Amino acid sequence: MTTQQTPLSAQELALFNKWWGAANYLSVAQIYLLANPLLRENLTLEQTKPRLLGHWGTTPGLNFLYLHLNRIIREQKKSILFVAGPGHGAPGVVASTYLEGTYTEYFPEVTQDFEGLERLVKQFSFPGGIPSHAAPTTPGSIHEGGELGYSLSHAFGAVFDNPDLIAACVVGDGEAETGPLATSWHSNKFLNPATDGAVLPILHLNGYKIANPTVLARISSDELLALFRGYGYTPILVEGHEPDLMHQKMAVAMDQAFASITAIQKKARETGDLTRPLWPMIIMRSPKGWTGPKTVDGLRTEGYWRSHQVPFSDLTKPGHLELLGEWLRSYKPETLFDEKGTLLPEIRALAPHGELRMSANPHANGGALKRPLRLPDIKDYAVSVTSPGGVNGESTRVLGTWLRDVMRDNLASRNFRVWSPDENNSNRLGAVLDATPRAWDAETFDYDDHLAPDGHVMEILSEHTCQGWLEGYLLTGRHGFFSCYEAFIHIVDSMVNQHAKWLKTAKEVPWRRPIASLNYLLTSHVWRQDHNGFSHQDPGFIDHVINKKADIARVYLPPDANTLLWVTQHCLKSWDRVNVIVAGKQPEPQWLSMDAAIKHCKQGIGMWEWASNDEGSEPDLVMACAGDVPTLETLAAVSILRHHVPDLKIRVVNVVDLLTMMSHDQHPHGLEDAEFDSLFTLDKPVIFAFHGYPQLIHKLIYKRINARNFHVHGFREEGTTTTPFDMTVLNHLDRYHLVLNAVRRVPKLADRAAYAAQAVRDKLVEHRLYVDAHGEDMPEIRDWKWLEK
Amino acid sequence: MTTQQTPLSAQELALFNKWWGAANYLSVAQIYLLANPLLRENLTLEQTKPRLLGHWGTTPGLNFLYLHLNRIIREQKKSILFVAGPGHGAPGVVASTYLEGTYTEYFPEVTQDFEGLERLVKQFSFPGGIPSHAAPTTPGSIHEGGELGYSLSHAFGAVFDNPDLIAACVVGDGEAETGPLATSWHSNKFLNPATDGAVLPILHLNGYKIANPTVLARISSDELLALFRGYGYTPILVEGHEPDLMHQKMAVAMDQAFASITAIQKKARETGDLTRPLWPMIIMRSPKGWTGPKTVDGLRTEGYWRSHQVPFSDLTKPGHLELLGEWLRSYKPETLFDEKGTLLPEIRALAPHGELRMSANPHANGGALKRPLRLPDIKDYAVSVTSPGGVNGESTRVLGTWLRDVMRDNLASRNFRVWSPDENNSNRLGAVLDATPRAWDAETFDYDDHLAPDGHVMEILSEHTCQGWLEGYLLTGRHGFFSCYEAFIHIVDSMVNQHAKWLKTAKEVPWRRPIASLNYLLTSHVWRQDHNGFSHQDPGFIDHVINKKADIARVYLPPDANTLLWVTQHCLKSWDRVNVIVAGKQPEPQWLSMDAAIKHCKQGIGMWEWASNDEGSEPDLVMACAGDVPTLETLAAVSILRHHVPDLKIRVVNVVDLLTMMSHDQHPHGLEDAEFDSLFTLDKPVIFAFHGYPQLIHKLIYKRINARNFHVHGFREEGTTTTPFDMTVLNHLDRYHLVLNAVRRVPKLADRAAYAAQAVRDKLVEHRLYVDAHGEDMPEIRDWKWLEK
Repeated sequence: MTTQQTPLSAQELALFNKWWGAANYLSVAQIYLLANPLLRENLTLEQTKPRLLGHWGTTPGLNFLYLHLNRIIREQKKSILFVAGPGHGAPGVVASTYLEGTYTEYFPEVTQDFEGLERLVKQFSFPGGIPSHAAPTTPGSIHEGGELGYSLSHAFGAVFDNPDLIAACVVGDGEAETGPLATSWHSNKFLNPATDGAVLPILHLNGYKIANPTVLARISSDELLALFRGYGYTPILVEGHEPDLMHQKMAVAMDQAFASITAIQKKARETGDLTRPLWPMIIMRSPKGWTGPKTVDGLRTEGYWRSHQVPFSDLTKPGHLELLGEWLRSYKPETLFDEKGTLLPEIRALAPHGELRMSANPHANGGALKRPLRLPDIKDYAVSVTSPGGVNGESTRVLGTWLRDVMRDNLASRNFRVWSPDENNSNRLGAVLDATPRAWDAETFDYDDHLAPDGHVMEILSEHTCQGWLEGYLLTGRHGFFSCYEAFIHIVDSMVNQHAKWLKTAKEVPWRRPIASLNYLLTSHVWRQDHNGFSHQDPGFIDHVINKKADIARVYLPPDANTLLWVTQHCLKSWDRVNVIVAGKQPEPQWLSMDAAIKHCKQGIGMWEWASNDEGSEPDLVMACAGDVPTLETLAAVSILRHHVPDLKIRVVNVVDLLTMMSHDQHPHGLEDAEFDSLFTLDKPVIFAFHGYPQLIHKLIYKRINARNFHVHGFREEGTTTTPFDMTVLNHLDRYHLVLNAVRRVPKLADRAAYAAQAVRDKLVEHRLYVDAHGEDMPEIRDWKWLEK
Repeated sequence: MTTQQTPLSAQELALFNKWWGAANYLSVAQIYLLANPLLRENLTLEQTKPRLLGHWGTTPGLNFLYLHLNRIIREQKKSILFVAGPGHGAPGVVASTYLEGTYTEYFPEVTQDFEGLERLVKQFSFPGGIPSHAAPTTPGSIHEGGELGYSLSHAFGAVFDNPDLIAACVVGDGEAETGPLATSWHSNKFLNPATDGAVLPILHLNGYKIANPTVLARISSDELLALFRGYGYTPILVEGHEPDLMHQKMAVAMDQAFASITAIQKKARETGDLTRPLWPMIIMRSPKGWTGPKTVDGLRTEGYWRSHQVPFSDLTKPGHLELLGEWLRSYKPETLFDEKGTLLPEIRALAPHGELRMSANPHANGGALKRPLRLPDIKDYAVSVTSPGGVNGESTRVLGTWLRDVMRDNLASRNFRVWSPDENNSNRLGAVLDATPRAWDAETFDYDDHLAPDGHVMEILSEHTCQGWLEGYLLTGRHGFFSCYEAFIHIVDSMVNQHAKWLKTAKEVPWRRPIASLNYLLTSHVWRQDHNGFSHQDPGFIDHVINKKADIARVYLPPDANTLLWVTQHCLKSWDRVNVIVAGKQPEPQWLSMDAAIKHCKQGIGMWEWASNDEGSEPDLVMACAGDVPTLETLAAVSILRHHVPDLKIRVVNVVDLLTMMSHDQHPHGLEDAEFDSLFTLDKPVIFAFHGYPQLIHKLIYKRINARNFHVHGFREEGTTTTPFDMTVLNHLDRYHLVLNAVRRVPKLADRAAYAAQAVRDKLVEHRLYVDAHGEDMPEIRDWKWLEK
């Protein structure tokens, strides 16, 4: 071997094996032991855990990589974030962070001695202890890895606008089979080598999932290398199982990869040539459960799926306790830790110091780096509304002008990006492109518009990748805004779950600082996807988010542009939340002046006196609404009712903050019962026009006294390609059905119910005939105006 | 050019251009025209649609490919299914199916003459007409393409076990960016060249999405070809824009691709060598909006994103109506259709006949091919339960033995597969591997187990791919069963939405036949993911599914093995449903003998007399439960209550079919109010222990008279790595919290509430201390037995 092939001296090699042995030892100890962490006594069954958890299979590989990354950090002083994709890899990550001292700094009771080791091994996957994933409790982690698929998009999200950061992202070959991961390799087309950092993907090819081989481990090396060249990387293959050889090969590979990253960044930063480079990536093919038992009970174990979780779990079986002892002793703990149980200093010296330790990288606790956004005064962007409904506006287009200036005002800080799966313009937020182009570092032509490597509008046709990037960006202390067609945000339901779980758990970890909220604008919503048809009509994401913890989930349904402005700036100022805003993009009546909008939104729910005629007395009927189209239909219904039954006392209530409907003991935004009752009365009928599935309202209000008198109209899963108004008719959310239901519910109108039913039928037939003939709604529907003064 | 490069004669070429022109003409006409379909009058504004929808950009490419596939079918008599991935491509697909006559056979009013053309153009994206996607109304389609990402997995699902079928799957380069699509290329590792059919993927590289270039169009050809070689295909690149040249190139490419498919299949079928072949794929790089206007208002349009939807939409703008006329006339309709408006016979002759037409392929209306499964008698697999709770069992392991025999009994018919994202064994359904191996046609080693190309257990670590394959399999008339960890089924939330929408719409299309239901077993559920931690704990999929149409959604919570057997066989016999079964895999008490299970499950809900002591009278308290762990905790709570307060009259109600809780007018399975009231009383407290989020029960029962007295315990989004019982304690679903709530709600126990609260606190402290010390639940919890006789 040449020196180039053996960058590690014999002495270094010996130390590398010791560190790796110590990390592997502590990993196995965490998985199996309750006590006797250094095997100073004879191992007994009582010293082992009753339930064995955590995945050994991936762990030695993670430990190996952690060690080799530390070598680079020591030599090159790089700021590296370690993203552990493989599931249940915490035994390794925790062991490494303990060996480099950080774990003890974050959890002082886990000391660097025998007692600390006892705590370390006991707590792992033990009730009241820590989970088997690199969770919020893990120093240096921004990625849990409980649900697979998002490591690489998290890594890219972390390095956007962090030019000095390198995310070393280990991708398991199981995870690599998921859709979200498979497309996230293309993130390299959105990375600016000058102003963003770098990602070093490391595909950890150990061959097996729970019970199956992995696809990428069972294709030829030619195909494997072609695949990653096709994804735009220069793959470096490190393959083998003999530790000394593998250490040398990995050291060569790491040197090569980091030299390549350095050269790419230097060129881009010095020459300004931002042409997409071929970033390096490493493929490490090593045995699953490397250094573990070769066989158990005569069955192949190392390098096989049997090593995926714990190689053997019933320690009462003959020979198993002894096998565990042998396995642990094979790492020679007595040569790694001193008498007190402290790692020997020459081994510890392989770790970098202070914030250069990956486990102490400041970006991994992004909340501590977070700076508030500069937000321009929303009043400067307000739609002038002199009378309710007197003017039309496109709410999201108005918001776009404000977002453009949020972008402009924060561009120097490089801490704000907007995301959309190829829908930014369709969602009418195109104005942001006046402040910054779309991020794009693939090929461009002279006729392209608004594409550049340093753009801050992120668009790829993958909701998963958008979400993963955004989460990585938020978790490292920045801000973001995701606009999406309402129906298709369900694509990331499960990612939202996992992020919400991260937020909940992180709040319970004292040293984790709050991060900026995950903000969604859902537009192109169910009621205005009349043209795109049934597949584009689904308001169920609200239902999904409302199941999250009350201190995390927020849902806003601003009925017009000024309320949308207020709600959005409110969300951009918040932290540790998942904020869902649903708002329209089509021209629609504007109801509230900016002053009125601010007052209304701060309350979250309120009576609209200008539309009501109960004048402070008890009404006969409450007409309530949440959402832009329901608000329009409610006001249209109210004006029909007031025209025909002028002495009917109607109160109009509009809901912006949906969670005000919940009981206060269930959600912090929930109205106190007294407030709720004073708005909705104790016993009067409430006709509630709701943006989403009607049962959701019943679910929110089941504890309220007047719950039984709520009659909710919403989406009944009826849709097709039709007109906007016909969408409401199909689902009985239209003004006529609202009027009819109101007439039926108000006792004093009982004698008019039959007449009203006939009138509504006539109206609906007239509407149907017009639509069939003209393909659009009747002019009286399209141009309806609220006429009350 | 050699003959090999010009397979089409000059005469054929002329006819090809005519067919393509006719298809493109009808596509533009559908998008723009309300009347005057052959431009026999001067085009007026009134003859155009008020709202212009449908995507022109992808359409000429789809028409081009359809034509070239027809050539192969005519020459080689292949059975080909056309899967149109690109969104909103219906103008093209509908035009092609009309030209080959099928559309008229399915919709006789759309005749092959001038009147038919008028109907054809008017109905498109017009209220009451057809949508802009290849929807259930489109002959020959099994794939809507409203939400992008699933075309290729649908195509593979369709050809599994259909050896004579070839799915030609057009993948848009927008769709190709999605995660689900990016990983579905690997489906070739799961295809058996002998007993499955083939998929010919055609990447339609037209360069743009709504407003952005596509990633795959902006990487070098080297990278592009490497990527698909890496995915395991032999890519054939067809690139250009001159129609004549492109026709020749495509004819060459199609000849090559189909020759390759034929050779691969022949070899596998004749020699038995099933080694994974390098299947062909085609990459067609052609201009977006090919043959459309080159510029509009001086702006680049053909070959640019401006062609994505409609190239120009405001026809009142100067020159636009004329531009539309010119564009339409460029296809020379007068040379394509005769006086009556019928396609000229020499052009029509390019289409195949009968079922060989892709639009008439029988597999596309799979319900018509569906044969019921042979289902072994579940009684032969029953767990013997002589006294309730007297025996423990692992419900899913028992189910596995029955599924093994379902597999065995239907293997000859090749119409049943089971799916799982690498969790089949973990979910304890491993017995099916005794009947059939896992499908696998990547590399194997001699120590591999249960992997073979003709396996019928489908496992890839991609919930999306599993779901897409399964949908494709069901839509082509077969049966399937998907087992998944409960938390991670949310990954396919959006796919379930789209499938449910397909089912709903297909029911409204008279010629679509019912298909087998989409059956889920969710196990490794929230209450028994104590070891895997919070990321694995989420019962919200039920909430998601319940929002679907009442005649589609079903949710079952069998409390033990025998009820699970009944429910599963019931689901496998059903059609056009989305059935969700949630059941445990861990050892747990078995409650019902098979006879009792059958009776109970047929009712879906019922009183458990053996656990109740109200003996036909009005009880003081109803203890209700749904789900295995809630049932266990409820019975434990009941035995505590009966022990301490023997004169308390308790009724135990168990719910298997969750939708019995809904009002009968909202769901066909909903109990009539009288039945509901007789079970749950009119005014007695009901302590309801529920598997999922508690508010869901309130949402289901809000119309019931006794709704206000329901006190629901369920998952409160509290989780971590802990013991099974501690999971229930954290969420107040445990027996002690149930007892305490019961004592508080029953008026006659009011004086015992303080005592009970103290006793419960003591118990929980004792439990906590035990768990902290031992890492597992107290023996009295682990071994608790129902003792009542």
